[in-house]
Amino acid sequence: MKPVNLTDKLSKISTHWDPHVIADYNDNDVMVVKFIGEFPFHLHEDTDDFFLVLKGEMTMDVEDTSHIVKEGELFIVPRGVTHRPRASEECHVLLIEPKGTPNSGDPATASSKPRL
Amino acid sequence: MKPVNLTDKLSKISTHWDPHVIADYNDNDVMVVKFIGEFPFHLHEDTDDFFLVLKGEMTMDVEDTSHIVKEGELFIVPRGVTHRPRASEECHVLLIEPKGTPNSGDPATASSKPRL
Repeated sequence: MKPVNLTDKLSKISTHWDPHVIADYNDNDVMVVKFIGEFPFHLHEDTDDFFLVLKGEMTMDVEDTSHIVKEGELFIVPRGVTHRPRASEECHVLLIEPKGTPNSGDPATASSKPRL
Repeated sequence: MKPVNLTDKLSKISTHWDPHVIADYNDNDVMVVKFIGEFPFHLHEDTDDFFLVLKGEMTMDVEDTSHIVKEGELFIVPRGVTHRPRASEECHVLLIEPKGTPNSGDPATASSKPRL
């Protein structure tokens, strides 16, 4: 039980699209991740998807529209909604998902995420 | 489904210790709140308590110790742990709690929180 500095945790990540767990909140993983480029379109049948932009900005493509999500902005994708995050420059994001949620919606990616 | 700017939402709050809901994540309220002074010691039997400091700093008194939590830092109080947030100067915080969680641990404070 101690404070977790988000910038410090992000400084330890050199990969992209590779969320690292920094804390637990009930049955959820609290994670930080660096985005650049495009992630595949996907959806989560059973959970909303929580994104908070900590640095930079991303675009969230959702069904037939796109939202720019800037530093200090939160975007929650409701369960069952097809979405794709992308970023033309590196973007740092706080993610929250129930433990065991596959990143891409594909159960093959549901293994435990690395912990910082 | 749109981006939620945390600074904009906080600019609409003039009270302290009065969380306002800005989004929903599964069965949780995502809230912003302004702290100053001391909240009562309390605990939540059934949920962890998620605090992310957005501006300023707070102190979290937890059992027999205290943690300073600075801007950009996360602090999660595990369920069942007695705690008290306090701040000598105004501090802005993102909170996440399951819907219906009483602020102070007292069910009398479990009514719906205002929404921004």
